Amino acid sequence: MSGSSFGKAFNITTFGESHGKGIGVVIQGCPPGLLINEDILQNALDKRKPGQGIAGTKRREPDHPVIVSGVFENQTTGTPIMIFIENKDAKSSSYNTIKSLFRPGHGDFSYQSKYGIRDYRGGGRASARETAARVAAGAVAQLVLDQFSIRIQSFTLELGGIRAQKTDQLHLKENNALQCPDPEAAVKMEDRIKAVKDQGDSLGGIVQITATNVPAGIGDPVFDKLDADIAKGLMSIGAVKAVEIGAGIQAPLMTGFENNDQISLQGFETNHSGGILAGISNGDNIIARVHVKPIPSILKQQNTIDTKGNPAVISTQGRHDISAIPRINMVCESMMAIVLADHILRQKSLK
Amino acid sequence: MSGSSFGKAFNITTFGESHGKGIGVVIQGCPPGLLINEDILQNALDKRKPGQGIAGTKRREPDHPVIVSGVFENQTTGTPIMIFIENKDAKSSSYNTIKSLFRPGHGDFSYQSKYGIRDYRGGGRASARETAARVAAGAVAQLVLDQFSIRIQSFTLELGGIRAQKTDQLHLKENNALQCPDPEAAVKMEDRIKAVKDQGDSLGGIVQITATNVPAGIGDPVFDKLDADIAKGLMSIGAVKAVEIGAGIQAPLMTGFENNDQISLQGFETNHSGGILAGISNGDNIIARVHVKPIPSILKQQNTIDTKGNPAVISTQGRHDISAIPRINMVCESMMAIVLADHILRQKSLK
Amino acid sequence: MSGSSFGKAFNITTFGESHGKGIGVVIQGCPPGLLINEDILQNALDKRKPGQGIAGTKRREPDHPVIVSGVFENQTTGTPIMIFIENKDAKSSSYNTIKSLFRPGHGDFSYQSKYGIRDYRGGGRASARETAARVAAGAVAQLVLDQFSIRIQSFTLELGGIRAQKTDQLHLKENNALQCPDPEAAVKMEDRIKAVKDQGDSLGGIVQITATNVPAGIGDPVFDKLDADIAKGLMSIGAVKAVEIGAGIQAPLMTGFENNDQISLQGFETNHSGGILAGISNGDNIIARVHVKPIPSILKQQNTIDTKGNPAVISTQGRHDISAIPRINMVCESMMAIVLADHILRQKSLK
Amino acid sequence: MSGSSFGKAFNITTFGESHGKGIGVVIQGCPPGLLINEDILQNALDKRKPGQGIAGTKRREPDHPVIVSGVFENQTTGTPIMIFIENKDAKSSSYNTIKSLFRPGHGDFSYQSKYGIRDYRGGGRASARETAARVAAGAVAQLVLDQFSIRIQSFTLELGGIRAQKTDQLHLKENNALQCPDPEAAVKMEDRIKAVKDQGDSLGGIVQITATNVPAGIGDPVFDKLDADIAKGLMSIGAVKAVEIGAGIQAPLMTGFENNDQISLQGFETNHSGGILAGISNGDNIIARVHVKPIPSILKQQNTIDTKGNPAVISTQGRHDISAIPRINMVCESMMAIVLADHILRQKSLK
Repeated sequence: MSGSSFGKAFNITTFGESHGKGIGVVIQGCPPGLLINEDILQNALDKRKPGQGIAGTKRREPDHPVIVSGVFENQTTGTPIMIFIENKDAKSSSYNTIKSLFRPGHGDFSYQSKYGIRDYRGGGRASARETAARVAAGAVAQLVLDQFSIRIQSFTLELGGIRAQKTDQLHLKENNALQCPDPEAAVKMEDRIKAVKDQGDSLGGIVQITATNVPAGIGDPVFDKLDADIAKGLMSIGAVKAVEIGAGIQAPLMTGFENNDQISLQGFETNHSGGILAGISNGDNIIARVHVKPIPSILKQQNTIDTKGNPAVISTQGRHDISAIPRINMVCESMMAIVLADHILRQKSLK
Repeated sequence: MSGSSFGKAFNITTFGESHGKGIGVVIQGCPPGLLINEDILQNALDKRKPGQGIAGTKRREPDHPVIVSGVFENQTTGTPIMIFIENKDAKSSSYNTIKSLFRPGHGDFSYQSKYGIRDYRGGGRASARETAARVAAGAVAQLVLDQFSIRIQSFTLELGGIRAQKTDQLHLKENNALQCPDPEAAVKMEDRIKAVKDQGDSLGGIVQITATNVPAGIGDPVFDKLDADIAKGLMSIGAVKAVEIGAGIQAPLMTGFENNDQISLQGFETNHSGGILAGISNGDNIIARVHVKPIPSILKQQNTIDTKGNPAVISTQGRHDISAIPRINMVCESMMAIVLADHILRQKSLK
Repeated sequence: MSGSSFGKAFNITTFGESHGKGIGVVIQGCPPGLLINEDILQNALDKRKPGQGIAGTKRREPDHPVIVSGVFENQTTGTPIMIFIENKDAKSSSYNTIKSLFRPGHGDFSYQSKYGIRDYRGGGRASARETAARVAAGAVAQLVLDQFSIRIQSFTLELGGIRAQKTDQLHLKENNALQCPDPEAAVKMEDRIKAVKDQGDSLGGIVQITATNVPAGIGDPVFDKLDADIAKGLMSIGAVKAVEIGAGIQAPLMTGFENNDQISLQGFETNHSGGILAGISNGDNIIARVHVKPIPSILKQQNTIDTKGNPAVISTQGRHDISAIPRINMVCESMMAIVLADHILRQKSLK
Repeated sequence: MSGSSFGKAFNITTFGESHGKGIGVVIQGCPPGLLINEDILQNALDKRKPGQGIAGTKRREPDHPVIVSGVFENQTTGTPIMIFIENKDAKSSSYNTIKSLFRPGHGDFSYQSKYGIRDYRGGGRASARETAARVAAGAVAQLVLDQFSIRIQSFTLELGGIRAQKTDQLHLKENNALQCPDPEAAVKMEDRIKAVKDQGDSLGGIVQITATNVPAGIGDPVFDKLDADIAKGLMSIGAVKAVEIGAGIQAPLMTGFENNDQISLQGFETNHSGGILAGISNGDNIIARVHVKPIPSILKQQNTIDTKGNPAVISTQGRHDISAIPRINMVCESMMAIVLADHILRQKSLK
């Protein structure tokens, strides 16, 4: 079934494994006449590239996106856009030792249960590498959003339990490798990462994603609510364990009077709704947060079993990030862009 | 577009408004030969019926489900099952006064922005009444799950900021009207509800949903991950503002070593994953939590604007619950059942 | 799976059996603000109603369509439109005798093979009665087409081997009960029907459907070609055994030079393409033809087996048409309307 | 929207243009554990390759299929299978002269109307070259069918008006380049092709496709009828203008008694139904026929207009087949395989 496809009007289908020939995406429903080239995609992919910053691995993935179809003379043609990213820096040999072990926190056991066979090299289809295809698709989605001046930004709100206190000056996130707009918190986060790295362990955190300039009226009633599709899009990213919209987990701590966004002539007086009422955008900023689990691949020794059912211990050597943050930030932005592009185009068919 | 449809192998389509002729659901993909009758549906619907308990309204909705198609001699035939619930107790007149006002926290403004027209009576399509159709569909989904002895249960973990401490004796939830397994917390919750009710205000809370006996191997890679579909299903319920899977919002506070579920011969030693690894079930209990916002319809006076853009104040009289809990519990169980039935049937096509 | 759903932007889901409580359709994606009432639907349904004309049965089906949802104050609201038609004139008892026999030419055997259970009363879900739901949906689709002044008409081109020779004065089809624009052919068709009726047998024929004013640019490349979707829509009507587009079965008898529609300043000089090039409309009339098999329910004795595998003979008494024509004409027009409405709305999302 | 996707349980998405980097397909829903390699795909592609036989062009397309994902150690893994075919022998320059002309019988005008932009090189997305992706997908679908010993075969029934009279010895089709099992007819067809070629013109014909060993019970009621999906699949192939099932266009010339397949202890006594009753397979051979229009690219001068609306004449030089037959035969077999694999897997989810 079509479980690697997402979206109805703006529809993407991804494929590929961590250590196969490459990964990619087919994008259907992109309107014709949008200016596009591989540099636009490269810029987006560079924002999720590993090997940068303190939380990253040293693995170098060049990740050069190639536009294979759907574009003619630097314009989208309206036909399926296929973008392919070759796997260049994958060392399959380094995974041979864990061929027969189920790594805790990974999909090894569940994939084996489902299919009775698995491409164990680097997690195969379950590898975070598949998110590169999401980012490529997100860059195309953003071209659709550009026509509405919709902008999507994310930042690191929390990492390893350290919370950013000052988040209103978003541009400050560019000053550190963790995408955190609070300079003091960023320093503490880096210290925390170093300490945990020394212990052969890893960290998680919280990322907030905001979309501005989203017109009111986007989203569908009942199941394809805008927040429901955002929740699916974000939860489908490997390490995400919770998704909040607007006030999110704070909402149950307020009364209705406190939580309701009252309306004045200037618009909604607060934005606890996160820009979405009854599943449909209200013109305010769309706000979502994701709670990201710590990277499961750690040097620390863990208990597991092998594929024959014998007890074993495992210590993941390889090249692994300490935290999915900040690389996951761009993936979250991309999924938000894809959901919004889909609903923007869906809304057009009703007009 | 098909925004009121959900699921691929087990596929439901709902319709209806709060104050129209009725609401209902068409269920496609249900296997033939399952024993079914309207009593089974009635029992499910009774669990979400209003007018019961301290948090409920006095509105009586008989909610008699009628099986219109797809069933012959008390067996499913494999063809679309339509279940219809007539609207009997809807007083449209009581909504005339708010015909021209946008209620804070409701979809009035966003629906108007989307469609340029709205059935303002009781929220129309955006009314929580649509969830009755989900519950009817969930009861059919449960018939599919029964073949695998999968059981789904929910309980109230928090209400109005009061958290249940003891949650291991789940049957105790039947002893109070709030579906809370902690008797002491339940009493405090009731007190809190009374106090807030007197202030013309409302409350939210947290509901936990657990599915037991789910076989390993359910769910699809990448976008149709089991947790992604659960997140969509639960977030699509009106008042839900956040969805957690397994450790959820606690996951980022742990290190990888703490959060990983190590594996022994007896199985996973913990269940921080919530029974889902890389989007596919691992055989452990599926655990999800939803954060429910307080009911937006309150007696307390709020600022708003009317449909012509003039400032106004609004106080919702009507018959409204103080909290979506515990009625929402059954809706959450139903959505969980629908997602699991869908993925159970999807998995069959791979075997 | 969603086999009773059709269309992507304009999406319909039908339900119901011949002798259950009723049949109906849920329509998603219909734009808001279209004027609609039950009379519009009734008019459409009257055009397929049985009991009229020489080829018809005496069974009276009142077929009163009730709009259950999605309409407010006689306007579509953009939410799912459910239309229900109660089964009033169904005599289940008359089918008890064939409960255990597989009727030749019907789906009894194939349904039993698929599901292991079947609602044998009047063919259950396989009854031509389900086409009433298509006609109701087609009437709503036509409201979408009205905004583009698109008009769909059909006529009987052949019946029982008798071919209409003069088909250019389409309005003449209203002068006879067979929807044939050639008065002389119509008389011969009626004579043929009488003769065959006396023999307890039945007839088939050919219906041509034309859509005018379809703008150029409707349809999608590769699989969702406009002609591919029309072919599916028409072939999905029970008795249809072949579908032609444009020159259709004549195309292979021409050379490329003869078949190509050359282009002048006035447009295409011929219309062998049937208004569709490479799956996309070219602005000319859309033309399709369906080849309809004779009604399988006949008085004449036929060989069959019973559900236990014993040989048997069967003679269908009941109330049955001699030919699916002219009732099927309106069903074909409806499917054409549904396909065009779907692609018209799909095209909007690209602009 | 997802117009380049086809199928629900076995789901394919194709991409690529005639003169871009290449074409390909992503296959979702293929069960894990099927043995596969590129030779299997190559064999299938060789059956549609140009440059062979009297009706073919001299253009050499190596068409080497590369399995990019979804396969591990020569087994399908259950994850998306991407197959890519590089465009190697495409000379874009030869199309520059017709850059500004709408070719009669081609999609140039309709694509321009739809998108306002088109990749004019070799027809872009509308090129018959896209069918190579269908054939690659069909070869994978056949692996699913192999588990049921389902076999699909096609033959040329008619070409340029010359009809094969003897079609029961199907293997004789291998003795000529036109896939015609009637040796005498094949000779006449070749003569006809030579004559037409000399006139700078082209021919069409009829292909029959048969699937044997299809179990009873495949197909869905109402819209996703097996014959409806076959009709869509076949009509979506570029040059097809009509699709017949079973007796097809002969059905309306019979009475009900003549057309009905009566049933004896040995099974259905005839197969006018083409193995499908009420949209569901009955265990007999599935039989379909397609009517193929003559190749629109001809040397003969034709009238047309240019993209600025001026009258022009056009004579297509290039390397073009005289007839889509016999290359289209393999494409038809592939679409039949894809539809059957889809419905075979769909049926599994009901059991």
